[in-house]
Amino acid sequence: MINSRVATMPAAPQRAFASDNAAGAHPAVLDALLEANEGHALAYGSDRWTEEAHARFRDLFGPASEPFLVLNGTGANVMALATMVHPAECVVCTDWAHIAVDEAGAPERALGAKLLTLPSPGAKLVPEQLTALAHLQGVQHHAQPGVVSITQSTELGTLYTADEVAALCDTAHRMGMLVHLDGARIANATAALGGTHAALRSFTVDAGVDVVSFGGTKAGLMGGEAVVYLDPALATRAKYVRKMVNQLPSKMRFVAAQFNALLHDDLWIRGAQQANGTAEYMYEQTRSIPGVSYDHAPQVNSLFPVLPAEAIAPLCEWCFFWDWDVSRNQVRWMTAWDTTTDDVDRFVAGVRHLLG
Amino acid sequence: MINSRVATMPAAPQRAFASDNAAGAHPAVLDALLEANEGHALAYGSDRWTEEAHARFRDLFGPASEPFLVLNGTGANVMALATMVHPAECVVCTDWAHIAVDEAGAPERALGAKLLTLPSPGAKLVPEQLTALAHLQGVQHHAQPGVVSITQSTELGTLYTADEVAALCDTAHRMGMLVHLDGARIANATAALGGTHAALRSFTVDAGVDVVSFGGTKAGLMGGEAVVYLDPALATRAKYVRKMVNQLPSKMRFVAAQFNALLHDDLWIRGAQQANGTAEYMYEQTRSIPGVSYDHAPQVNSLFPVLPAEAIAPLCEWCFFWDWDVSRNQVRWMTAWDTTTDDVDRFVAGVRHLLG
Amino acid sequence: MINSRVATMPAAPQRAFASDNAAGAHPAVLDALLEANEGHALAYGSDRWTEEAHARFRDLFGPASEPFLVLNGTGANVMALATMVHPAECVVCTDWAHIAVDEAGAPERALGAKLLTLPSPGAKLVPEQLTALAHLQGVQHHAQPGVVSITQSTELGTLYTADEVAALCDTAHRMGMLVHLDGARIANATAALGGTHAALRSFTVDAGVDVVSFGGTKAGLMGGEAVVYLDPALATRAKYVRKMVNQLPSKMRFVAAQFNALLHDDLWIRGAQQANGTAEYMYEQTRSIPGVSYDHAPQVNSLFPVLPAEAIAPLCEWCFFWDWDVSRNQVRWMTAWDTTTDDVDRFVAGVRHLLG
Amino acid sequence: MINSRVATMPAAPQRAFASDNAAGAHPAVLDALLEANEGHALAYGSDRWTEEAHARFRDLFGPASEPFLVLNGTGANVMALATMVHPAECVVCTDWAHIAVDEAGAPERALGAKLLTLPSPGAKLVPEQLTALAHLQGVQHHAQPGVVSITQSTELGTLYTADEVAALCDTAHRMGMLVHLDGARIANATAALGGTHAALRSFTVDAGVDVVSFGGTKAGLMGGEAVVYLDPALATRAKYVRKMVNQLPSKMRFVAAQFNALLHDDLWIRGAQQANGTAEYMYEQTRSIPGVSYDHAPQVNSLFPVLPAEAIAPLCEWCFFWDWDVSRNQVRWMTAWDTTTDDVDRFVAGVRHLLG
Repeated sequence: MINSRVATMPAAPQRAFASDNAAGAHPAVLDALLEANEGHALAYGSDRWTEEAHARFRDLFGPASEPFLVLNGTGANVMALATMVHPAECVVCTDWAHIAVDEAGAPERALGAKLLTLPSPGAKLVPEQLTALAHLQGVQHHAQPGVVSITQSTELGTLYTADEVAALCDTAHRMGMLVHLDGARIANATAALGGTHAALRSFTVDAGVDVVSFGGTKAGLMGGEAVVYLDPALATRAKYVRKMVNQLPSKMRFVAAQFNALLHDDLWIRGAQQANGTAEYMYEQTRSIPGVSYDHAPQVNSLFPVLPAEAIAPLCEWCFFWDWDVSRNQVRWMTAWDTTTDDVDRFVAGVRHLLG
Repeated sequence: MINSRVATMPAAPQRAFASDNAAGAHPAVLDALLEANEGHALAYGSDRWTEEAHARFRDLFGPASEPFLVLNGTGANVMALATMVHPAECVVCTDWAHIAVDEAGAPERALGAKLLTLPSPGAKLVPEQLTALAHLQGVQHHAQPGVVSITQSTELGTLYTADEVAALCDTAHRMGMLVHLDGARIANATAALGGTHAALRSFTVDAGVDVVSFGGTKAGLMGGEAVVYLDPALATRAKYVRKMVNQLPSKMRFVAAQFNALLHDDLWIRGAQQANGTAEYMYEQTRSIPGVSYDHAPQVNSLFPVLPAEAIAPLCEWCFFWDWDVSRNQVRWMTAWDTTTDDVDRFVAGVRHLLG
Repeated sequence: MINSRVATMPAAPQRAFASDNAAGAHPAVLDALLEANEGHALAYGSDRWTEEAHARFRDLFGPASEPFLVLNGTGANVMALATMVHPAECVVCTDWAHIAVDEAGAPERALGAKLLTLPSPGAKLVPEQLTALAHLQGVQHHAQPGVVSITQSTELGTLYTADEVAALCDTAHRMGMLVHLDGARIANATAALGGTHAALRSFTVDAGVDVVSFGGTKAGLMGGEAVVYLDPALATRAKYVRKMVNQLPSKMRFVAAQFNALLHDDLWIRGAQQANGTAEYMYEQTRSIPGVSYDHAPQVNSLFPVLPAEAIAPLCEWCFFWDWDVSRNQVRWMTAWDTTTDDVDRFVAGVRHLLG
Repeated sequence: MINSRVATMPAAPQRAFASDNAAGAHPAVLDALLEANEGHALAYGSDRWTEEAHARFRDLFGPASEPFLVLNGTGANVMALATMVHPAECVVCTDWAHIAVDEAGAPERALGAKLLTLPSPGAKLVPEQLTALAHLQGVQHHAQPGVVSITQSTELGTLYTADEVAALCDTAHRMGMLVHLDGARIANATAALGGTHAALRSFTVDAGVDVVSFGGTKAGLMGGEAVVYLDPALATRAKYVRKMVNQLPSKMRFVAAQFNALLHDDLWIRGAQQANGTAEYMYEQTRSIPGVSYDHAPQVNSLFPVLPAEAIAPLCEWCFFWDWDVSRNQVRWMTAWDTTTDDVDRFVAGVRHLLG
């Protein structure tokens, strides 16, 4: 049945749903690059674009915060953690954490430290999981829990509320641990939790997070991230550590200029609202299609539908997306800052057509 | 005397002589970025721009070579070395080597290995320095010499001839060591040694070098480098190691597109010829100015003049450059791909004016 | 009730049941130390005792095997793994593995590599857990499974049969992985599986294990372990790596002499038979005491009884042992090479007395 | 001529002059091991021998000091440094330093940090070498000088006076650096500088040293060293770090018991006085033998004579010692705690006989 319909699929959307890092850069980001490419400017951050970017981050996170521009997401996480973890400590995270699963052992290599992964059906930690680690503390045979790293929004497209983050921070701090937030998709989380600077601060600086990896690439840059120290005392060695983990951009003005465009007038939040909104729209348009089922609605920009087995390959060939849990025919559809409702409409039409 | 002339300095050049990484990106590189920013493309290298860049590198270094795009120069070096060095081995380099002096310990951190720095007045190694390490070999107390890393052109602006590189490679290989070439300024070296692909190959693949860090940033990119495995057997784990050292670009098409513009029609060589040529011109125009002295003529794009002590600060304030050896009033002037003879003329006019 | 009996406990055993590393050294080991302390001998292994120890290990594991004496168990494991794991690979082990839980992050620090811990109710891996890792292979984002490390006998006192080890080795090798066996209690395993050299070989060299950590300390030494390369190709850099992980004994003759005594006339197996036998005896004598329950009989020298909550503290104070799973009032009793049936009888009398 | 005399060499000494780690253990140390081998004792330091050893170290270094027993010298150094160095810092030492030359890269591996080796004809640093590093401080490209590690007595058998150590500590501390003292031969240094506890303290705690590696093995143990934190604030994570660098002894009582014997009644100082004294005696007996020349008298227990080239091999074959600087026919003769004047007399007789 499905096979017969493959030949007659409607026009595919202009943009597929593979990932938010399959999207390009926002035109405003490109304009900023062009503008920054005038003449010479000292390398490694001694330029006016970097100064502006630092000011923009301090506007977001408060005047005491210390931002550092870096090259990519793994680098941001590794740099942050390398300034937070002490010898013989471990980093506590979920078993879905990007740092644990998708960074090829970069943290263990750069930190020389264990990642202690805790089971987490929804890719979220709860304070009880931290208190359960108390038996490790003080015992010389065990790596000591030193840093908790959470991801917001998570690798499964879920969200911590501000209160949940605050509760984790409270528990962690009481136990003598620091808190890192991997914000590769912090824009999507901010958009989902209110879309304001106050929303951003509610689950970061106000909640007690110590250091944030602030994602720019998925939010619309060509490439660029930032490590923001909300506790500036932790930033003392940050500039050396950035270099030590290969994350000091040479012509830094070009990373800074991108961020200046993205942070201007909340472009980063508006892009994430677009991504989250089209995901929600996609969910609404597909949830009642026979053969499509979801465990839950999307909280940010990723959907994890279960599809009829025989539909996955042809649908994927028509408009690419990634498998998720092969054992149950679950796939991932992900929107980006540039996804349009037209893209969704065309995709949904294809799904409807194929599933009959 | 000098003070009185400070007030009447002529117009400064449009571009200063601080460093080649103070230059921006070539317009063709920007055009390529704009062109690549169309629609979605899979991340992490599964895109047509990366495919093209790989082909371009294989055109340069031969069909067996294996290129990998990365984010910055320290990252390129660390990635290359991490695939070359075995446990308990050390990396042999000069005491001027960027990896030893200017990377904040990144190699030691990522490799867990010693850098054995050898004295080198001109930032170059000679084969006898390698053979002198034979007493370390086989002794369990000593880190074993595993990799020789040379820089071309060097941190002091000097050059290895193709024969010199070949002799080092021969000696290293006979002793069981591999050879890495840090080519952060490989374009300048290529330009200086003939300006052809054959020139490039003469001191790399033909000379027996195993792995090259190919610099793009100083040659005219916004940011981007490549690690090229001339011995493809060493590339087996390279893609995982790239991720492990935080050097896998997310939206890789944007690194690739830059390289495609740079490698097209030898733009990288022409830019380096411009840099080297204006440095030579600057040398000729300043060498006979009273008070200016040089140890030797420039081989690529950096000059190291000794100046009257009292001239340095005002000259530097007028048109920025870096100190080099403060103890002897030596400074560094460096040209870039975009330096013009007009820039040099204006600068020389200022020097002449100030030194009277 | 119990409280009233505390005051009238019978005489405690001479040796408690805390751990096998609470035992001292066998008298023959001390005699060997005295004998070896004659005059001068070159350090770092250039002595006749080390030569003899190497020969003894080659007698056990075959003439191609390559033994290296080291200082302690964590060091043995780290040295072995450091010669086996490549950059960006991970070490696969159980979530009970000593390397993962009880070595304070030593492997991650020395290897710069991830430990991928798999759930294992009995502290044993099965081949299906390895094949389930195939989806990680070849994907640049994931640390690549490079080494499987199993423990024999395990941290939970369980045993792999020779066939089980062989099946794991087959699967691992087919997948391109190497196999390490943490034999901190290899003597107990050997004793339990037949008590012969053939038994030892059945689950090591014959099963396809690549590298063994051979435990001496728990088997009756003052201190000393060995790393034995069953695949001698892996030993190429072992002597340098041993030094690199702080495991080269200075006056090596004293480690060697201890092993020579332990390996002479199978003293190591006889000691382990004593430990295993008294554990079995203890199990038989206590299993039907009301209030004492076991999940299963001991396979080697550790018992994990569940006791009445109120009995644990007084019993422990009378004759020390460690808690195991506090949530279910489970404790650990462990015998050693020097445990006697009289020790067991006295302990059982105390248990009976206390539990009434 | 020499050849004809080889056949008629007198009787060789009972003990050769290869190294102080070619000596065995002092009989009192063996007695202590025998005494400690009674019954069971908890592992990992929860035993009365360890408690006593800690008290003995506190007697030496003051009640605030924090001692930790470890397994070997490289381990002691690595553990000490791992608790002292921060990310992106380097360890400053001489180019003769054991940590830089003779530990197979162990520090770089365990610390993930650069060792910055400074030239030092006599294996000693001077404060001016530290102040010359000020240009590295604060520059993000350079590993930051974090720890100075000096060796006392040095790898060349030289000594720092207490004032020299104090001056280094003052300079280091003023620059924000910590000071580690590698005391593999701290007994020889103590003996040479007065032979009292006050002498020991004069160049350690009184001079401002932060952490000491206290050598036991060369002083007469079978094997055992200690890391002593003179600044207890640095010891906060020491017990975990000790485990992380494979240096936590399992049956720690046996390391502790050895130290208890060695530290009792200043046995360690008396043994070092014997070593130093016989070296001095050897110097006096050989300095005027034609063909033997010295650069200077020994300060502790090693002599570096230049010999006639043709005499070295036969002398060495008769009574083993190591080459030192082959290019100038320089060798090393080293005494130990158990060297007797009779050993020296016999050796000198052989030298005289051979050199005619």
